[in-house]
Amino acid sequence: MRTLINNLKENEETIISGWAKKIRDTKYMIFIVLQDRSSSIQVSIDKENNKELVKKMEGVLPDSIIEFKGKMVLSEYVKNGGKEFLPTELKVISSAEALPLENNANIDTRLDFRWIDLRSEKNQLMMAVQSEMVRAMREYLYNNDFTEIHTPKLLGTASESGSEVFEVKYFDRKAYLAQSPQFYKQMALASGLERVFEVAPAFRAENSNTNRHTTEFTSFDVEMAFIDSYEDIMSLEEDILIYALTKVKEKYEDKINDIFDTEVIIPVKPFPRIKLNDLYKELHERYGYEIPKEDVGDMNAEAEKLTSKFALEVYGSEFIFVTDFSKTKRAFYHMRENDIPQGYDLIWRGTEITTGAQREHRYEILKKQCEEKGLTKDVEFYLKFFKYGCPVHGGFAIGVDRLNMLLLNIPSLKEEMFLFRGPNRLEP
Amino acid sequence: MRTLINNLKENEETIISGWAKKIRDTKYMIFIVLQDRSSSIQVSIDKENNKELVKKMEGVLPDSIIEFKGKMVLSEYVKNGGKEFLPTELKVISSAEALPLENNANIDTRLDFRWIDLRSEKNQLMMAVQSEMVRAMREYLYNNDFTEIHTPKLLGTASESGSEVFEVKYFDRKAYLAQSPQFYKQMALASGLERVFEVAPAFRAENSNTNRHTTEFTSFDVEMAFIDSYEDIMSLEEDILIYALTKVKEKYEDKINDIFDTEVIIPVKPFPRIKLNDLYKELHERYGYEIPKEDVGDMNAEAEKLTSKFALEVYGSEFIFVTDFSKTKRAFYHMRENDIPQGYDLIWRGTEITTGAQREHRYEILKKQCEEKGLTKDVEFYLKFFKYGCPVHGGFAIGVDRLNMLLLNIPSLKEEMFLFRGPNRLEP
Repeated sequence: MRTLINNLKENEETIISGWAKKIRDTKYMIFIVLQDRSSSIQVSIDKENNKELVKKMEGVLPDSIIEFKGKMVLSEYVKNGGKEFLPTELKVISSAEALPLENNANIDTRLDFRWIDLRSEKNQLMMAVQSEMVRAMREYLYNNDFTEIHTPKLLGTASESGSEVFEVKYFDRKAYLAQSPQFYKQMALASGLERVFEVAPAFRAENSNTNRHTTEFTSFDVEMAFIDSYEDIMSLEEDILIYALTKVKEKYEDKINDIFDTEVIIPVKPFPRIKLNDLYKELHERYGYEIPKEDVGDMNAEAEKLTSKFALEVYGSEFIFVTDFSKTKRAFYHMRENDIPQGYDLIWRGTEITTGAQREHRYEILKKQCEEKGLTKDVEFYLKFFKYGCPVHGGFAIGVDRLNMLLLNIPSLKEEMFLFRGPNRLEP
Repeated sequence: MRTLINNLKENEETIISGWAKKIRDTKYMIFIVLQDRSSSIQVSIDKENNKELVKKMEGVLPDSIIEFKGKMVLSEYVKNGGKEFLPTELKVISSAEALPLENNANIDTRLDFRWIDLRSEKNQLMMAVQSEMVRAMREYLYNNDFTEIHTPKLLGTASESGSEVFEVKYFDRKAYLAQSPQFYKQMALASGLERVFEVAPAFRAENSNTNRHTTEFTSFDVEMAFIDSYEDIMSLEEDILIYALTKVKEKYEDKINDIFDTEVIIPVKPFPRIKLNDLYKELHERYGYEIPKEDVGDMNAEAEKLTSKFALEVYGSEFIFVTDFSKTKRAFYHMRENDIPQGYDLIWRGTEITTGAQREHRYEILKKQCEEKGLTKDVEFYLKFFKYGCPVHGGFAIGVDRLNMLLLNIPSLKEEMFLFRGPNRLEP
């Protein structure tokens, strides 16, 4: 059994195994930087006295997997903690061909060889941070009586909006891929669960190639019953984000500062809130920005950027809630009061990361709002959830990849996702 | 803001809100059993002195959501802890129509109204146990340096086996829904992550209607590098199951014993192991069972049942690993030694819950095993993962719903899943 490099004890015979990240063949010595999940160490082979090992290393290229038997010793000549490993045996577990990826390859080439691209220190940290972020978000919810659910992704109707839905050949009929678990997390509350969440893929048939779009992404969805208003939802989201960012900072602050050009800043509760029309005024007065006609009642990418600038300047906050959108720009299931949707967008670092809202739980009103948007047949099944008792409720969703992208100042979803999916990208 | 029923203090004015599970209108009193996520309480309305409340309760049916303002008092006349709630105000939040579901409705009718069906005490517990089980399984992995990944469900080729794959209309081409994250969790290890897991939907276009089949299920997938053999994978799975079952038992033992006709039994490590041919002999000698010709080298439903019987009788164990399957019956990516696949099935309570294995990580051998199974073009992208360095590794998958079904002695996946999906079932 192998020992992790971090656990090596001086002069104890043991086995280590990992990635040969660097191989340097000099006149008298071969030096290998071997890396495992705990750390890395220099393996030094004295060529004169290890002819068999030298032979085995012939033609072995970086990123090969090698197992060494031998001892760790302390040495004042070695950088990186003064430790080196002196092997007496070695086994090449997997011999790497010359890597096909240049250091400065563009992102599309890198995606073709994503499994090599992900080996960089930067991308390894990116994956680790995403995992920790989601772990902590879940932990917060478990600690607050939430139940995890798994809702179907195969749907019988094109639900929320027909246009951007993928169609599946389902035996002798059609199915559709879920764009979000919205209807089903609400169903869970109508089922008597008071607080639910789900972390799962969501699918959008958007034929656009931007830094913020993808046809498949991981959605972190939360829904909670017996709220007083959407303020409870904003408060919950504040708590989750503060909790998760704190955990990430505790675990990875130094590495993030080192490797990414950014800092983990823990926000303070409550995040600032502003109504959309007041925000328009501020953006106009401060930055001369006028929202284009087609976006009135809503935000757009440029407005989001300026909103973050505004939040930082005025409130010293990276986060800001925008409320009071126009009902024409919001989903039919948002509750309205005096015709104003009872929901919000949360903006962080120039980008919208969440739409949240109190939902309309009263059957008759919901039905009317449905009809107003021209949706009826496809959502019939959904309307029934509200006929037999359903508590007051609300919720929100966060895109896990977008969140991590912004946290680490990564320029695009293509760079951030484990494997990006777009209109022209289904491989590898 | 509402107070949870469990947190009510005597004689303090407060608001409670929940499901009116029972409503009993007598000559002088209306009694309501109100339930929230913490508990339930009897709400008692003295009709003579609360005319307005009585009016509001007119026509209100069970499963409506009601909010009450008032005080909790102790009363010797009340069962269930001797507490009752005396309201001075009430608000019907959501008025339920008469429930369309009879108590003894068959499962298909119940699925039509799944959100009502799930309200039963039994189903509420079922959902809670599944959530806790998965939480604990993840926790074990986080505690052991695993990284969570999210792999794409939209694939460019029909990968593992073309026959049972759903086809998606993907702009001007076709995509396919992932049957498992197998290839991508292996890619994650080739990407330098040593230990990964994923909990996500998997899709199977199987046109069969049995208790154990569904077209969409939640798969708990684990993959680990730098193993010595598939014994490491079995050991990991033992640890995860022992950990998770222990957590479930700690939290829900009494309730499970009360509500389900079963017990949570924590297995002991190591679980018994038996080679397939030895097992055939045992099943023949003990139970006169002969494996049908078409299943030789493999298991089937009947053999699984008898194997559990055997494991209980001989080892006193609910769990048993079966190893040494025939290579003709196992996936091409299982590593072989002397032509024997280096993997296992894990049987629990009469059913296979896992296939696990060490994977073939050597490009040339893997390629040959691919060709042998007649797969080449569709897995070309996958083979490349092994060309540029890939550690020794293995893993397994568990179906979350099947696990919970067996744990709680639930007769079918239809009953266990939040929302079942089958060839004839895409609704609600």
